Amino acid sequence: MTDTPRSHGKKSISASLKPRELMGSGDLHGVWKAQVVTLFPEAFPGTLGLSLTGRALKDRLWQLETVALRAFGEGRHRNVDDTPAGGGAGMVLRPDVMGRALDDARSRIAPGAPILYLSPRGKPFDQAMARRLAEGPGMTLICGRFEGMDERVLDHYGIQEVSLGDFVLTGGEIAAQALIDASVRLIPRVLGNHESVEEESFSHGLLEHPQYTKPPVWNGRAIPEILLSGHHAKITDWQRSQAERLTKERRPDLWRAWCAAHGRDPEEDREL
Amino acid sequence: MTDTPRSHGKKSISASLKPRELMGSGDLHGVWKAQVVTLFPEAFPGTLGLSLTGRALKDRLWQLETVALRAFGEGRHRNVDDTPAGGGAGMVLRPDVMGRALDDARSRIAPGAPILYLSPRGKPFDQAMARRLAEGPGMTLICGRFEGMDERVLDHYGIQEVSLGDFVLTGGEIAAQALIDASVRLIPRVLGNHESVEEESFSHGLLEHPQYTKPPVWNGRAIPEILLSGHHAKITDWQRSQAERLTKERRPDLWRAWCAAHGRDPEEDREL
Repeated sequence: MTDTPRSHGKKSISASLKPRELMGSGDLHGVWKAQVVTLFPEAFPGTLGLSLTGRALKDRLWQLETVALRAFGEGRHRNVDDTPAGGGAGMVLRPDVMGRALDDARSRIAPGAPILYLSPRGKPFDQAMARRLAEGPGMTLICGRFEGMDERVLDHYGIQEVSLGDFVLTGGEIAAQALIDASVRLIPRVLGNHESVEEESFSHGLLEHPQYTKPPVWNGRAIPEILLSGHHAKITDWQRSQAERLTKERRPDLWRAWCAAHGRDPEEDREL
Repeated sequence: MTDTPRSHGKKSISASLKPRELMGSGDLHGVWKAQVVTLFPEAFPGTLGLSLTGRALKDRLWQLETVALRAFGEGRHRNVDDTPAGGGAGMVLRPDVMGRALDDARSRIAPGAPILYLSPRGKPFDQAMARRLAEGPGMTLICGRFEGMDERVLDHYGIQEVSLGDFVLTGGEIAAQALIDASVRLIPRVLGNHESVEEESFSHGLLEHPQYTKPPVWNGRAIPEILLSGHHAKITDWQRSQAERLTKERRPDLWRAWCAAHGRDPEEDREL
């Protein structure tokens, strides 16, 4: 194998044999970068190319690069996986193939950028992690597909495993898009002012209070009177008490954490 | 407003003004269906159109329909949102607009299919929920974008709020794809045999044990000897003890739940 695998020119796999593809206009030094090592580079930018994240990509507020794992595969068929040592079902991604893809990818990103592997074994992704990622230089994400990953790669590169939640996806691509979306929107200037307020609210640790808009009556249901009263202090009190009620009812875990951070007794029964 | 909004023929918004689009070949009676109400129908099928879920879509094992919310908007500009009652930042999706989109969508799906709204306020999505969704006739998913949703719509339709995790996304589209992917792969015949084994393993409540494949030595790191020993019983024991160790270290919550289900003491220190 050489360090720079080339396409065989076969039509059916040509898309996957470009070792890397940059979405946008050339490498931008110093701009936050997401690299995605994947068997399905055509999944990107996907939803990330639309709306706010897509506009920010065009405006060069961040950059996205896919690294086609297939291009680093073994032999004629560019194999990337093999049977698990010790037997068993499924296939495992080869450490030498993944190693070549990572060495290639890492030559084009700041050394401080973490390497993350999307896996149900990982640390659950949350807003604090999104904030840390957004403050760094970027990240290299590895997407699995059915297969497991050879453990030696995880050890050798100090790869962090991250989980989107306690469920199984057919591949890491959708999870990677979620991580990138949650991180990119925290990069300065990606969001307008009014959206960042909503982010603040979540980061305060309570669920959002109910919201209403026009028309005042819909299907026999009216907007709560207090919201139309014009008493701003009372409205704020009502919204806060609704947020507390919802958090207490739906997410006792978040409620206890919020009470601990605010010196409140979680069992205290206020007039809500 | 009429019941069947039509396009103005403006080029810039024409894609969003088709009220619905079916990915595939016509409505399939009795086939599991995902409906997505969204301002960005072009985000679909996205990653869902690739790999196993994509093949299963072509093979008519499931069907996907997008419902363009914009097509049900108010007036010349097809507005879908308005300012929040009581003041405050951001915009709120109008109940009348969302109501029209839902009435339209629901006429084309089995009444037993739940309506889910992707929101950080919701119940955290997990594998048990994916399984229930896969066993039903399908689901209608609502994607927000920055905006909140008028609470009356949630009440009126009995909409269930579902959260992908404790983080904020710019929109519900990526979260919807995660829900659909996790559910579709559990529909009979979507996965081959060997992948379903992996799913079973996760559903047993422990994290996956480490995996290895060729080559036997990579970068000075060897595959653990026991895996090359051929002693199948010892290999299975080793893999189980590794899965227990990882779960205990990384996810004390899952470990306690697994111990409770298996009559084990979570503090017990086995020779692992």
